Amino acid sequence: MNSSKDWQFRLHELIYESNTPAGKAFDVGLLFAIFTSIAVVMLDSVHFLHLKYGSLFRILEWIFTILFTIEYILRLICIKKPHKYVFSLLGVIDMIALIPSYLGFFFVGTQSLLVFRALRLLRVFRIFKLGHFLSEINFLTTALKGSVRKISIFLLTVLMLTVILGSIMYLVEERENGFSNIPESIYWAIVTITTVGYGDISPVTPMGKFVAAVVMLIGYSIIAVPTGILTHDLAMLARQKKELPESCPSCSREGHDLDAQFCKYCGASLMRN
Amino acid sequence: MNSSKDWQFRLHELIYESNTPAGKAFDVGLLFAIFTSIAVVMLDSVHFLHLKYGSLFRILEWIFTILFTIEYILRLICIKKPHKYVFSLLGVIDMIALIPSYLGFFFVGTQSLLVFRALRLLRVFRIFKLGHFLSEINFLTTALKGSVRKISIFLLTVLMLTVILGSIMYLVEERENGFSNIPESIYWAIVTITTVGYGDISPVTPMGKFVAAVVMLIGYSIIAVPTGILTHDLAMLARQKKELPESCPSCSREGHDLDAQFCKYCGASLMRN
Amino acid sequence: MNSSKDWQFRLHELIYESNTPAGKAFDVGLLFAIFTSIAVVMLDSVHFLHLKYGSLFRILEWIFTILFTIEYILRLICIKKPHKYVFSLLGVIDMIALIPSYLGFFFVGTQSLLVFRALRLLRVFRIFKLGHFLSEINFLTTALKGSVRKISIFLLTVLMLTVILGSIMYLVEERENGFSNIPESIYWAIVTITTVGYGDISPVTPMGKFVAAVVMLIGYSIIAVPTGILTHDLAMLARQKKELPESCPSCSREGHDLDAQFCKYCGASLMRN
Amino acid sequence: MNSSKDWQFRLHELIYESNTPAGKAFDVGLLFAIFTSIAVVMLDSVHFLHLKYGSLFRILEWIFTILFTIEYILRLICIKKPHKYVFSLLGVIDMIALIPSYLGFFFVGTQSLLVFRALRLLRVFRIFKLGHFLSEINFLTTALKGSVRKISIFLLTVLMLTVILGSIMYLVEERENGFSNIPESIYWAIVTITTVGYGDISPVTPMGKFVAAVVMLIGYSIIAVPTGILTHDLAMLARQKKELPESCPSCSREGHDLDAQFCKYCGASLMRN
Repeated sequence: MNSSKDWQFRLHELIYESNTPAGKAFDVGLLFAIFTSIAVVMLDSVHFLHLKYGSLFRILEWIFTILFTIEYILRLICIKKPHKYVFSLLGVIDMIALIPSYLGFFFVGTQSLLVFRALRLLRVFRIFKLGHFLSEINFLTTALKGSVRKISIFLLTVLMLTVILGSIMYLVEERENGFSNIPESIYWAIVTITTVGYGDISPVTPMGKFVAAVVMLIGYSIIAVPTGILTHDLAMLARQKKELPESCPSCSREGHDLDAQFCKYCGASLMRN
Repeated sequence: MNSSKDWQFRLHELIYESNTPAGKAFDVGLLFAIFTSIAVVMLDSVHFLHLKYGSLFRILEWIFTILFTIEYILRLICIKKPHKYVFSLLGVIDMIALIPSYLGFFFVGTQSLLVFRALRLLRVFRIFKLGHFLSEINFLTTALKGSVRKISIFLLTVLMLTVILGSIMYLVEERENGFSNIPESIYWAIVTITTVGYGDISPVTPMGKFVAAVVMLIGYSIIAVPTGILTHDLAMLARQKKELPESCPSCSREGHDLDAQFCKYCGASLMRN
Repeated sequence: MNSSKDWQFRLHELIYESNTPAGKAFDVGLLFAIFTSIAVVMLDSVHFLHLKYGSLFRILEWIFTILFTIEYILRLICIKKPHKYVFSLLGVIDMIALIPSYLGFFFVGTQSLLVFRALRLLRVFRIFKLGHFLSEINFLTTALKGSVRKISIFLLTVLMLTVILGSIMYLVEERENGFSNIPESIYWAIVTITTVGYGDISPVTPMGKFVAAVVMLIGYSIIAVPTGILTHDLAMLARQKKELPESCPSCSREGHDLDAQFCKYCGASLMRN
Repeated sequence: MNSSKDWQFRLHELIYESNTPAGKAFDVGLLFAIFTSIAVVMLDSVHFLHLKYGSLFRILEWIFTILFTIEYILRLICIKKPHKYVFSLLGVIDMIALIPSYLGFFFVGTQSLLVFRALRLLRVFRIFKLGHFLSEINFLTTALKGSVRKISIFLLTVLMLTVILGSIMYLVEERENGFSNIPESIYWAIVTITTVGYGDISPVTPMGKFVAAVVMLIGYSIIAVPTGILTHDLAMLARQKKELPESCPSCSREGHDLDAQFCKYCGASLMRN
């Protein structure tokens, strides 16, 4: 039936695409619903608000659960391969956002799992993709993807440093000052090297303070590393982007160097005189 | 009346412009008055100084209020369209700086609102604009304006991360350790991810400490993002600035785009054959 | 004996090299053993786990000690100059990782020295060197080596600043507020200037708070220095890498620009046609 | 008298210059004496060490005072215009390092002023200037000098922000939670915006925590500014150094290296003889 196909297509455009006014409105409305439902979960977690408005919050929560369930079903029926959506990142998150409410029928205390609805906020980026933010997001994510490997090595090195420095601190500092075991000492090392510095565990002996000072200065110096990496990668990316489009007038192949005078594929002159 | 016009014009030059010695002196004097009046409000907020010099502070405050009122009136009468000043940023701030004193006649406790006089310090930038700081300020503000959009996306991502990580922490950590509700946990996540680390709320359970360590390492790594963005934008800006001056061989006017082939002022070819 | 040589060679390849599947497997297995042995030491340091599984941990620890001893001996017998390994960085670390267990026979309490096994984690980098991380690691280490000198000067300046600022704070702040002697005050200055801020020692008097604010603002501003240095050095390195190999066909001197058409030393044509 | 001149000249070379082995040895020896004398002052400030070794410390302190006095006199007599040294930065610091000991004859408690000897550590940079650190130090100081103006504007903006945000916090948060007056609140704002976060004063009310979160996110974002400025200025400096304008006398094209002897475009000699 043609009309069914059409109906399915239009629904798909409404829910999945955002280049039509209706699709845009749907996305904004959905985001608004997500925001509100998270706000409800948040406020419900505050004790005195729970006592006062608990029943109102429960009703609202169920309204949102039903709305999101309908949305989930619509998402399933308007695409050809529903399993693609179900097992996509956003699909899994949407499922996770629904489960806790329904689990509440069978188990007690699962409602606190509703906080995972916060993950649905990731849809914010879909909205941003519409507007003028697209090129900025693309640029940033490309640069971050390129830096991820280097920053992972950096983080691994930092973690190893905290294991070693935390272990040394465990030997140096007294047990009763909070460094009661190695995992605690490593936790302290992470708190210190990242310059967070809660102060829940802090060295008391002179030797411990000396080691702590070393850890702090290390943390203060190596913070330069991820910044240096990312800045460098952003610069590389911008340079590449700038130098790219230079197609041969003869064979129209691209990818020539800026100083190339002849096409490296067909030998034709690249000079525009 | 010509003399009236003249008088208005000279007053305008004195108050709004700063390229004459008198205008400069007025700006410096005004800034000094703002500084002193803020200092008075500050010192008055210190309990034992209030007890000792409270009446002196009140007199000084009224002197400044009268001076600022006169200044406000002068600003109004010496421009042609007073509403433009009234609804400008500086105009609104000037108004806000005046209201609390007068409100004091009718209501009790409004004097603490005088702290908003601190907003008048924004006039400092007017002074700087005079001197040799102009080009630096222009460069920085241009770069910051260009980065604002990207840094907003970054801040939004950080906020979303804190909502998600704070919610996870609310599930993981015990209520009595300070993570009593989700907003509190999000506050903790912001304190931690920005590496501020007050320590007023800090994880106690091993699982909580593990999540906290993850949050810290995230915060420590992503601080690279705004820095990378700004550094990159500064470099782009400097490159553009450098590549711009490409004067027309025919009319020698500058400011052409890099890909311009004809002078946008006289239409002559810009190609260097 | 040829077969002995051959056996020694193959063992060497297995243990020291990682370009064969067996060598790779050995490295991964070794790393896994190191990880597990460190985990055991860590968990054993937790009081209630020690009470519960203390004897299990002891057995595991001895298994790892024996395994690592065998590994150490194998490393010695399969190379021609064993002393080279013994006195290398990794050799010394491997030795340090073994001693505490054997010392346990003679002395009490040496087992806590087992934490130094964490140093063996440095072998992680050997594994990474295998895969696709090689170029990233090379790039980073080259840049860091180049920056080490500048960052040392920076750290020395920071240390000097903390000595001076800590001393000033010792004079300014009361003894009973934690600034009981100059080394303590310097420790406080390091905690503050690196923006760690435990809060175990914090100023109480107005004058002390003023000095502290100055220290914080200094720390907040100069964090730019190591980042600026590293970013700059990364950019320099990337530029050099790009420009390097281009030697003159006539005088074979190098260092020509990418767009050079003639040798800048002897004037010969650089065109490769 | 020639011999007197000669003696004076050699002494000048020994004390002020460092390009002779003797001058180098003098500088290193002096630095060692400064380090030791500061260490003595530091250790003497520790209560239980003062009780134990107080008299030894006093003797050592006097030995150093006499040594430094002799050095100061020698510095005066071996230059032609002694007042130039007396009123130079290092001269004033040297004087400040001497006065407290002598004041100890007349006044009680001046000995704690000896901590200002730490300022003499600035001489460290003289030593570094000798070796291979010269070019790095020059590069860094040139870049920092160029950035000082921009970073001052940044710091001023941060200070103004802390005044405004601190004042707002004073209105928002309860007096008894540590925000007892505006200067205290500004101190808190500096502690927070620089991400130090002692936790000695921290918000308690929901509204206060919200404002604090805003302050933290501002601090976390604007830390990019000084870094961006410095990195940018380092890059500019490096580019300038490289580009010093050098156009070919034959074809007038630019962009030659500093060490180029022939035009890379037309092969003409670039030598200006």
